[in-house]
Amino acid sequence: MRHYIGVDLGGTNIKAGVVDETGRILAEDSRKTKIPRPESEVCADIVETILCALSQAKLTLGDIEGVGVGCPGRMDSTRGVVVYSNNLIWREYPLCDMLRESLHRPVYLGNDANVAALGEVWAGSALGASSAVIVTLGTGVGAGIVIDSRILTGYNEAASEFGHTVIVHGGAPCTCGRRGCFESYASATGLVRMTREAMEQHPESLLWKLTDLAGVDGRIAFIAGRKGDKTAAEVVDRYIDYLACGLANIINAIQPEVISLGGGVAKEGDPLLIPLRERTYREVYSGLGEKYTRIELCTLGYKAGIIGAAMLALGNPR
Amino acid sequence: MRHYIGVDLGGTNIKAGVVDETGRILAEDSRKTKIPRPESEVCADIVETILCALSQAKLTLGDIEGVGVGCPGRMDSTRGVVVYSNNLIWREYPLCDMLRESLHRPVYLGNDANVAALGEVWAGSALGASSAVIVTLGTGVGAGIVIDSRILTGYNEAASEFGHTVIVHGGAPCTCGRRGCFESYASATGLVRMTREAMEQHPESLLWKLTDLAGVDGRIAFIAGRKGDKTAAEVVDRYIDYLACGLANIINAIQPEVISLGGGVAKEGDPLLIPLRERTYREVYSGLGEKYTRIELCTLGYKAGIIGAAMLALGNPR
Repeated sequence: MRHYIGVDLGGTNIKAGVVDETGRILAEDSRKTKIPRPESEVCADIVETILCALSQAKLTLGDIEGVGVGCPGRMDSTRGVVVYSNNLIWREYPLCDMLRESLHRPVYLGNDANVAALGEVWAGSALGASSAVIVTLGTGVGAGIVIDSRILTGYNEAASEFGHTVIVHGGAPCTCGRRGCFESYASATGLVRMTREAMEQHPESLLWKLTDLAGVDGRIAFIAGRKGDKTAAEVVDRYIDYLACGLANIINAIQPEVISLGGGVAKEGDPLLIPLRERTYREVYSGLGEKYTRIELCTLGYKAGIIGAAMLALGNPR
Repeated sequence: MRHYIGVDLGGTNIKAGVVDETGRILAEDSRKTKIPRPESEVCADIVETILCALSQAKLTLGDIEGVGVGCPGRMDSTRGVVVYSNNLIWREYPLCDMLRESLHRPVYLGNDANVAALGEVWAGSALGASSAVIVTLGTGVGAGIVIDSRILTGYNEAASEFGHTVIVHGGAPCTCGRRGCFESYASATGLVRMTREAMEQHPESLLWKLTDLAGVDGRIAFIAGRKGDKTAAEVVDRYIDYLACGLANIINAIQPEVISLGGGVAKEGDPLLIPLRERTYREVYSGLGEKYTRIELCTLGYKAGIIGAAMLALGNPR
């Protein structure tokens, strides 16, 4: 059995895991990233986290085929350089070279959302799929495209930003500068905005008994809707409508074998998934044939980032 | 030098060309498709068209490595079957098997829009690009995605329908059943609709001196706009705005090295292309870095279909 290291380097935590070639995590360890501080200190902590995980797995660096790192921001995976990371406050940092100096193993780099998508294909909700798009419904809408077990990075490694494709021309302003992006409607943030707007228009809604405007989160409309509140049910309905619109766009463009949904909103499970499937499939070009995109929920949680990072090393043999 | 046959099988014409491995057409021939008639008769005419093209190139079937066919509709390229073609009125027709019986050469099949995209990458506007999306602005909006010299067909060979991704939620009805599709705004048909609407609102417009409502085509707004008509200039402006929105969506999703525009509207050239580039680039996520998507015009015209079909055979060696 071959073994790999997967590192999920985030703005808050450094997580590292020892992963076998089947995508199973044998041991993992984590540290705080403690940004801002010098890059070299973060690198030293990455190495320490890896060594602790290895030690728990009763393995040494010599047992490892390679190391993969998922990192937020814009990567140059060919050069192994973090081109720009807002979360880490890094620019043009040669992360792979720095880690290789300490680890003496091959090191590979990828964007964290893309790497997590690879994890779901390797060992999670899209296991064995010839192609998959993983869509994360959190503060924003993230996405990763995997085709034939490889990340579709695009010409400049900035692809798969479905969150920043416009679905409502001239619609709600997005953090990216455009108006009407999928993210502005299908993120938890978008759901919160729509919930607040509905509350302001409906003082009679049960929503007011559950929260004030400041306390609105991405779950409250689902909760009040299940209790029979009409205003809340309409918010959920509208949210699912926009989400279905964006997913149908992804299907018509890419026709992946699987779309998997992750992030906070996806935790709603079937009350989200069942109407979402029905409405998305209604909008697929030329209808559903024998082969159509399955819409599923992600199953690996944070582990997708570790497993996917390890799979970067597996997919790039020396 | 190796040689291939490329066939562009349309509802109106059968075109066949002898293509060398550099993507150059050495000779070509064509016949009317004469639909409706039995599939076997169409097949016989495809074979005859191929033999005539070969004879013009002073070659025989024995000199040919393989034959590729581009066909409108839904294909199963693995089985070599035309699953469904509205234009040919064919269903589940085993075209590759039928042609192989007569030609005794390997035969490959692809969707015509995808195949034309492959032609532009092999020998036209996207020559040598690692990835490209070809967008055709005609009666509808067609598209083909090519990555690493291969067509992105998706799980069910129905991918790349960017024309049927919604950019205006709840907008103009589309032939596909959705509302607000990119095609409803960026096709020549969409441009004609917007021109007519503007004429109805502006009886003072120069457009009325050039045409009546029935005579409106996809060029008239560009022509009147150049003559200084404000109404027409606003139509062109709005059209370019929607087109830029859709292209920025494609870029944010796929980040291809090149987007090439074909079809009737693309013939406008620089008056379309220059403002289009400027507006599209404004909407690209995180702005333009060192590497960004070039936006170009297709250069091969109908030859893209022949060359791309031949390249199906080249890209699928025995």
